[in-house]
Amino acid sequence: MLKYQHIANEIEKYIEKHALQQGDKIPSLEMLMLHFGVSKSTITRSLDLLERKGIIFQVRGSGIFVRRHKRKGYINLISNQGFKKDHENFQITSRIIQLDIRKPTREVALNLNIEFDDDVYYGKRVRYIHGETLCLEELYFNKSIITYLNNEIISESILSYIKEGLGLKVGFTDTFLHVDKLTSEEATYLGLKKDNPKLYIEFVCHLTNGQAFNFSKVTYNYERSQFAIQMNSYYF
Amino acid sequence: MLKYQHIANEIEKYIEKHALQQGDKIPSLEMLMLHFGVSKSTITRSLDLLERKGIIFQVRGSGIFVRRHKRKGYINLISNQGFKKDHENFQITSRIIQLDIRKPTREVALNLNIEFDDDVYYGKRVRYIHGETLCLEELYFNKSIITYLNNEIISESILSYIKEGLGLKVGFTDTFLHVDKLTSEEATYLGLKKDNPKLYIEFVCHLTNGQAFNFSKVTYNYERSQFAIQMNSYYF
Repeated sequence: MLKYQHIANEIEKYIEKHALQQGDKIPSLEMLMLHFGVSKSTITRSLDLLERKGIIFQVRGSGIFVRRHKRKGYINLISNQGFKKDHENFQITSRIIQLDIRKPTREVALNLNIEFDDDVYYGKRVRYIHGETLCLEELYFNKSIITYLNNEIISESILSYIKEGLGLKVGFTDTFLHVDKLTSEEATYLGLKKDNPKLYIEFVCHLTNGQAFNFSKVTYNYERSQFAIQMNSYYF
Repeated sequence: MLKYQHIANEIEKYIEKHALQQGDKIPSLEMLMLHFGVSKSTITRSLDLLERKGIIFQVRGSGIFVRRHKRKGYINLISNQGFKKDHENFQITSRIIQLDIRKPTREVALNLNIEFDDDVYYGKRVRYIHGETLCLEELYFNKSIITYLNNEIISESILSYIKEGLGLKVGFTDTFLHVDKLTSEEATYLGLKKDNPKLYIEFVCHLTNGQAFNFSKVTYNYERSQFAIQMNSYYF
């Protein structure tokens, strides 16, 4: 972790610890420079990071303020911690339906940027939140990067395994979101009815070097799909 | 516009102009410093901005690469340009159903952080993409900030009016996303059937000083709701 990231974490912890609310002011850039004993450009980078994580907003000539505006029960869709950290507040369990090694379909090959005769790990699981169905997942991993998986690994945090077990550096994700009607198979897995609404999201996850290692197709139970996105842009 | 933002725009234009694709390398930090005649910390900030806009990714010890990975027909949900820039590729029109000044409901007061006896502008419109229904919108504006609106303004780009007409500085947006079934009223406006799926998004838009000026409730036609999100985090 780079120095500016470490400082950003420290500031975030400070906000947590003091339970600061939206609009609360935090120490000035000059105070933070002094406190952490680093240059202006390092603090600026830390603050930019916190701003893009939706944790603070900066008002020129006025100060730095806490942004955090959480709604209860919403999962934060965009966060540098990924889903995991938010999920920690919920009780998530998994049921594995399938795990095998196969050749990619055209769609999978395209998204993982691999050849048709390359191998992928394919996993299918249902996830539960407090014992109720949250989503049906189909996960495809480039086997030349994710060299080993088993049922136990994909029941738990795959991310921890990839980072700590395999020592890989996880980078950015492209996300594609649709709304549609459930097929009867999906409805069965989720305990819903055919043609009920579904939120369907495709994720393409890359290492920090830009290689796609995972393509996921996730169908959410619409009754339990409440997502929050904090963005530094605007609507209309 | 600050210098680092200007340079970020220049680099983005360079990528556009040369039609660079995902994985293509752009000039190094040192080359960019030399080319723009600015300090390392300015270029670093420009690159951080481009990274969080999902335009590039940086690999330590290896270089700076183009990230852009667009899928055709998808609207970019998270972008510093907001929806507007993506919509420019589509033909968007509006039909105004209502525009009045009223007192806020509890929900609106809470989201705009105003009192029950404050005034809000209320607008209701249907938006069309290439002549077909895209969404039904209910827009609430804090009248003490957005002091004037009329039918013509809300038929066009409200954002340009707010920025250029009223001279306000638009900051960040909080977004809350659900999937549900259409009510019969919504279905009528969108030309769909009751109980068809809907994507429902609430937006709370703030000025750069943190004041909420707009609360919007938007119901999308699920047949035309394909959103892309580029994020610097991961799934599972």
